[in-house]
Amino acid sequence: MTLNEIALFLGCAEIENHIEITGMNTLSEASEGEISFLSDSKYEKELLQTRASAVILPSSKSHLLPEGVIALVSEEPYMSVALLSKYFAKSIASSDVPPSIGEGTKLYPSSHIENGVCIGKNCTIMSGVYLGTDVVIGDDVILYPNVTVYRDCVIGNRVMIHAGTVIGSDGFGYAHTKLGEHVKLYQNGNVVIEDDVEIGANTTIDCAVFGSTVIKKGAKIDNLVQIGHNCIVGEHSILVSQTGLAGSSTLGRNVVMGGQSATAGHLTIAPFTTLAARSGVTKSIATKGVYSGFPLMEHKLWLKLQAKLARMLES
Amino acid sequence: MTLNEIALFLGCAEIENHIEITGMNTLSEASEGEISFLSDSKYEKELLQTRASAVILPSSKSHLLPEGVIALVSEEPYMSVALLSKYFAKSIASSDVPPSIGEGTKLYPSSHIENGVCIGKNCTIMSGVYLGTDVVIGDDVILYPNVTVYRDCVIGNRVMIHAGTVIGSDGFGYAHTKLGEHVKLYQNGNVVIEDDVEIGANTTIDCAVFGSTVIKKGAKIDNLVQIGHNCIVGEHSILVSQTGLAGSSTLGRNVVMGGQSATAGHLTIAPFTTLAARSGVTKSIATKGVYSGFPLMEHKLWLKLQAKLARMLES
Amino acid sequence: MTLNEIALFLGCAEIENHIEITGMNTLSEASEGEISFLSDSKYEKELLQTRASAVILPSSKSHLLPEGVIALVSEEPYMSVALLSKYFAKSIASSDVPPSIGEGTKLYPSSHIENGVCIGKNCTIMSGVYLGTDVVIGDDVILYPNVTVYRDCVIGNRVMIHAGTVIGSDGFGYAHTKLGEHVKLYQNGNVVIEDDVEIGANTTIDCAVFGSTVIKKGAKIDNLVQIGHNCIVGEHSILVSQTGLAGSSTLGRNVVMGGQSATAGHLTIAPFTTLAARSGVTKSIATKGVYSGFPLMEHKLWLKLQAKLARMLES
Repeated sequence: MTLNEIALFLGCAEIENHIEITGMNTLSEASEGEISFLSDSKYEKELLQTRASAVILPSSKSHLLPEGVIALVSEEPYMSVALLSKYFAKSIASSDVPPSIGEGTKLYPSSHIENGVCIGKNCTIMSGVYLGTDVVIGDDVILYPNVTVYRDCVIGNRVMIHAGTVIGSDGFGYAHTKLGEHVKLYQNGNVVIEDDVEIGANTTIDCAVFGSTVIKKGAKIDNLVQIGHNCIVGEHSILVSQTGLAGSSTLGRNVVMGGQSATAGHLTIAPFTTLAARSGVTKSIATKGVYSGFPLMEHKLWLKLQAKLARMLES
Repeated sequence: MTLNEIALFLGCAEIENHIEITGMNTLSEASEGEISFLSDSKYEKELLQTRASAVILPSSKSHLLPEGVIALVSEEPYMSVALLSKYFAKSIASSDVPPSIGEGTKLYPSSHIENGVCIGKNCTIMSGVYLGTDVVIGDDVILYPNVTVYRDCVIGNRVMIHAGTVIGSDGFGYAHTKLGEHVKLYQNGNVVIEDDVEIGANTTIDCAVFGSTVIKKGAKIDNLVQIGHNCIVGEHSILVSQTGLAGSSTLGRNVVMGGQSATAGHLTIAPFTTLAARSGVTKSIATKGVYSGFPLMEHKLWLKLQAKLARMLES
Repeated sequence: MTLNEIALFLGCAEIENHIEITGMNTLSEASEGEISFLSDSKYEKELLQTRASAVILPSSKSHLLPEGVIALVSEEPYMSVALLSKYFAKSIASSDVPPSIGEGTKLYPSSHIENGVCIGKNCTIMSGVYLGTDVVIGDDVILYPNVTVYRDCVIGNRVMIHAGTVIGSDGFGYAHTKLGEHVKLYQNGNVVIEDDVEIGANTTIDCAVFGSTVIKKGAKIDNLVQIGHNCIVGEHSILVSQTGLAGSSTLGRNVVMGGQSATAGHLTIAPFTTLAARSGVTKSIATKGVYSGFPLMEHKLWLKLQAKLARMLES
């Protein structure tokens, strides 16, 4: 799609430029030939350094664009991005390269490996596993039955993923019309799982909108955990069963989250923080410690609160 | 099974009527040839208009039956229904009609399509997908790997269901004996998913006991969500990850439920209501607004409560 | 592996004994030829009666060992056990005995049955089901599509397991290094599911570290429930959707747990106890009753607390 066609499709003012746009990306990650967008003014400063060829943004911000970057003016940039994302969505099976399977790797009969997949040595890919187009898997990996890995995801060495877990499903992102309808923001990123990660059964890890959702080296994730798009789970972090991370949460290394705990989106948790079972994090945590409750507080304060409530009950 | 055989099987008083009973249904939905039941007096008024051929009910209610409707008297009508439901349960594979697959639809090799299935045009049915007997699927649907759709479910156009999700599993319903054993109420209904719905990964949507669990047009459901039997999710509603709806919850249109929120069963939530993450609804909500907490309250009250608790902590 | 090799591998003091060690087990369950361990002083009294051939334990406890039992001294016994567990882990497919399938049992085409499996009569094993090595299944069992059963698990008669559920995945157990890395404790136990159990969709039940996770006769488990390693769920207990049991929880018979409720690990809940939706149990419950809240309290106290909080809001 050329830039003038995009402007036409989005209903923006006409543009003379006919360069071919090859993809969409964030302001900081976009490169030449890509289109980006500004839908939240907190990313304004990234506008100044973007290498995107064009940016979708409201008219009030177009003067901030660096020279040579073309503005596509939209008063609803997020909706424009959602509408456009469908045209840059990758199709499910789009490679002609036969999969490459390393020495000593065992594929069970009813696994399904798409083209473009590259699997290392001594892996066990059990029955019902699906590996999407261009998935890359390291050495000594075990994927238990009925694991699904969506296209483009990358899995390191010695990773173990238990049955029924889904890696790289679409993040939950929509633009909303005035009539209350939801327009899907197609998720074009992937999931990267580093070495020595273990993931339990029936867990779900969504792919990033752009870029990667990342599970860093040595992290251990239990059953039925939900990890939203663009999260970063730090090295050696531990997520106990039924925990949920909303989109774009960033956990430092060795964070421990107890069972049924959760974070809101777009926040950062300091390394070595411990979150008790069922705690709910709604703001970033800058200082490591032990936290509990919802709203979240220091664990010792939470204990004090419970003691006060117990006394209140006696009165 | 004829009516006299049913009476005999349930240990009810003998009945002379030998009509063939073709199925079980609720009082309001039953038609001629079906048997219904009254297990909760709040449905008494539906007794007056039922078109069922016979009704299982306690002796104290049998005088309320319309003329021509036969009473099967049971002092434990719910248990009688559970015992009888096994005999009307549909078998897993019971159609001789080969599946019908629309033009442009791609079936992956290890998908399994039962007889009686009807799939529209341009669908993608990926590996490990199971479609039960008589499932109906519209056009342009994507079912990602390892999705299971139980028999009789109906899926509209442009629906996208992510990997590992289960549509139409049995609702969680039992009658209880005095010895504490549980007798399964076989679930004979289905799930209906309307157009433009998207459902995340490893979510579960149970079929109805009778009738349908319904996900209306344009609703968006995230990963690891549980939707109980006979729920109705309104148009364009949004259910964020790890949310749970107990049986027979009805959500109006554009209801938003935050992550890990939940509803109790048999309640109604007004259109355009927003429920914050982790809120727990135990009573119907008649007025739209923003609600939080468990027990549920208006969000601004919840904020006030948290402020008061924080002050209490300081004292 | 002989005992002297184990001592060498773990960096313990040299041992002259060359007996072949056949497996690892708990102090109370170990038999001759097996190695056990003491990693928590609360199990000290089990030391006195162990029939293990050798025990890994700190030097301060070695004098407690019965005569003839050899001490492997380690100041980090849990880490030693984790390191050693990898060498006793069973491989995924290790039987040469072709599966035995009872009369009237139907296997769907893309199910995968490992060697050593034994299935009874009149079962339905649907598409995408995986049965690991040496799994034993009784009569009249239905396993819905994409159910995974890991090796060695035992399933009784008339059990029904809904789609996507995982039985016998590894429990979540690790020893931690001083650098914050996690060393997997390989889980060598199994899951035993007794007669007449029904399990919902996308639920996960982990195998035991040693011994068995047990779901007793007639228990009913809903969708998306998590049951940790070594739990025991009592006869006719009911676990509603999204409930989580941490490892080694023991539920008496007819315990009812409402939706999204949970227990911490290593606790016991009295028979006939009812836990309201969302309750969180952190201590054992000795007396049956109805409990709510987190922290847990008697349900009537919880109601009183909510009333007091409501009054506080008005002031």
